[in-house]
Amino acid sequence: MAESLGNVSLTISIDAMGGDYGPDVTIPASLACLKNNPELELILVGDEAVLAPRLTGALLTYRGRIVIQHASQCVGMDESPSKALKNKKDSSMRVAINLVRDGRADACVSAGNTGALMATARFVLKMIPGIDRPAIISTLPSIYGHTHALDLGANVDCSAEHLFQFAVMGAELVKAVEHIDNPKVGLLNIGEEDVKGNEQVKAAAKLLENSSLNYIGYVEGDSLTAGHVKVDLIVADGFVGNVALKSIEGAAKMIGTGLKDAFGKNLLAQLAGLIAYPVLKSFKDRIDPRRYNGASFLGLRGLVIKSHGGADVLAFKTAIQLAVCEVEQDVIRKISEQVEKSLALRESA
Amino acid sequence: MAESLGNVSLTISIDAMGGDYGPDVTIPASLACLKNNPELELILVGDEAVLAPRLTGALLTYRGRIVIQHASQCVGMDESPSKALKNKKDSSMRVAINLVRDGRADACVSAGNTGALMATARFVLKMIPGIDRPAIISTLPSIYGHTHALDLGANVDCSAEHLFQFAVMGAELVKAVEHIDNPKVGLLNIGEEDVKGNEQVKAAAKLLENSSLNYIGYVEGDSLTAGHVKVDLIVADGFVGNVALKSIEGAAKMIGTGLKDAFGKNLLAQLAGLIAYPVLKSFKDRIDPRRYNGASFLGLRGLVIKSHGGADVLAFKTAIQLAVCEVEQDVIRKISEQVEKSLALRESA
Repeated sequence: MAESLGNVSLTISIDAMGGDYGPDVTIPASLACLKNNPELELILVGDEAVLAPRLTGALLTYRGRIVIQHASQCVGMDESPSKALKNKKDSSMRVAINLVRDGRADACVSAGNTGALMATARFVLKMIPGIDRPAIISTLPSIYGHTHALDLGANVDCSAEHLFQFAVMGAELVKAVEHIDNPKVGLLNIGEEDVKGNEQVKAAAKLLENSSLNYIGYVEGDSLTAGHVKVDLIVADGFVGNVALKSIEGAAKMIGTGLKDAFGKNLLAQLAGLIAYPVLKSFKDRIDPRRYNGASFLGLRGLVIKSHGGADVLAFKTAIQLAVCEVEQDVIRKISEQVEKSLALRESA
Repeated sequence: MAESLGNVSLTISIDAMGGDYGPDVTIPASLACLKNNPELELILVGDEAVLAPRLTGALLTYRGRIVIQHASQCVGMDESPSKALKNKKDSSMRVAINLVRDGRADACVSAGNTGALMATARFVLKMIPGIDRPAIISTLPSIYGHTHALDLGANVDCSAEHLFQFAVMGAELVKAVEHIDNPKVGLLNIGEEDVKGNEQVKAAAKLLENSSLNYIGYVEGDSLTAGHVKVDLIVADGFVGNVALKSIEGAAKMIGTGLKDAFGKNLLAQLAGLIAYPVLKSFKDRIDPRRYNGASFLGLRGLVIKSHGGADVLAFKTAIQLAVCEVEQDVIRKISEQVEKSLALRESA
């Protein structure tokens, strides 16, 4: 863990200016996390003139557990990754990631634009040796609890080897955060039969079959949320994974909107809705996307958590908590060791 | 329309043995359609020894509007397309498609295995000149009503040209069945910005921008069901399209299961469920996958509708009705003419 600011032992850097709402969301979420987790220290990165006035009370309340790190620039939500990398060397995003590189923070959380965050993280932190490309992993609610899936959009074209590397990294993360020994790994495809799929997926299946992973075979899109068997980790290239994720989000929105409309149709329906409200609410809370906010960038030599750009306080809090969990579980070290082992295993084969 | 059996004018061949339930589903669904549509004639294809005893009454009731065409073989639901093509020349599937080729039926409906149906249809019917590959198109419920999407799984790798051809065919189908002049066409991608996507998608976008189609740009997975603007047709390669479709099905199942569990949790929840039932049911009916059953194979010189293998009577009926609609709207002729026009336009450019 990072060198401590005080006598506590877990430090997260927060890109306080990132996301659609910037400090309006990042500050209250940060303070809520500090309150809930006495071991946590936060470095809020951004324009000191903006952040300091909002933190006068907190700097006293959480003395030593919260500090402001000034950064003079912001990366726009639509800014191109290459421009952000080139022109925004003092952005809140970049400085927050620098803190991870320098060992001053154990992880960084940002709701900034995904492309810029990924490009900056990759440039600053570098890749784990043996991993060619970073991947984005996140969690989806499922009938079995939840499913982890990667890559959710970092890579538009992936070779079989890339997919294999994603599986190795993802399985290690799932082991660590779910406390299970041998997570079931499925490969996303358009059918479960051997003949199905494109060349990359077929070749990746061979690599996975010959690995030490608990590979269960091809799974289809429905397995992300409601397959006929439980899968702990689903591996896909970033194009397919991202489309699947967004498709699920859309379906949930469509059903939510539809139910709302149906219960608003007339007085009788409204009454029924009122009576059913607590039940509907409890279920809605379970699959609330804010409870699943936070995607981890895997493959880098440091921990970066990407929050949804439109995250509210609850959602951003979830992302910070995810960072805390992954730091506590020492995910980066475990992944690095596992990647090394996998490589050694393959070289000896 | 096909040469008439009697004095009515629309004939569909039914692969009566196909699907998980065969004649148990195909026969009652066929009879229901005959009852609803006095212009309809059906040719039920399959083992006469199995079909005839179940149709004695119907052959009288719908005299001249229903006939049995014997076929001695069945294609298994897991049979490989190449084996079906080679060894099952007298299958109910093959004979039903032959009837379309021979002009005896205007369209064919089968719940048989997708791969075999596609391979057989392509072999028997041949492609529309100018189209390289067939694609599967279907309809999904959306907050705007519904969305058409293709390719849903016929092609695992698609070039930009293929995606463009899918768009031309799909738009023509949407025009015909939705009675709209200029359907909005979106290209499925992992972001709406120009820089997003793989090479094929970027190149397809260029082709679409320079076409006469009402191309609105990139759309993300959520646009299939709940995008921020209405899209009439969404184009994707078959791998991505299929994963998206199954992901949406899974999400709907997960939410359905979750709601059922929530309303079953305790007596109070059960009571609330009872009161909310009519509202929940009306909404469930609207997005009932059985009401969206039936995918069309586009690009062939004849109309083939694929029903879900696990279709029940209501679902299979929907697939037959889709066939009727597309025959009435003369979809194949319209697509062929449009493809010819598009080719001519490009050659003159």
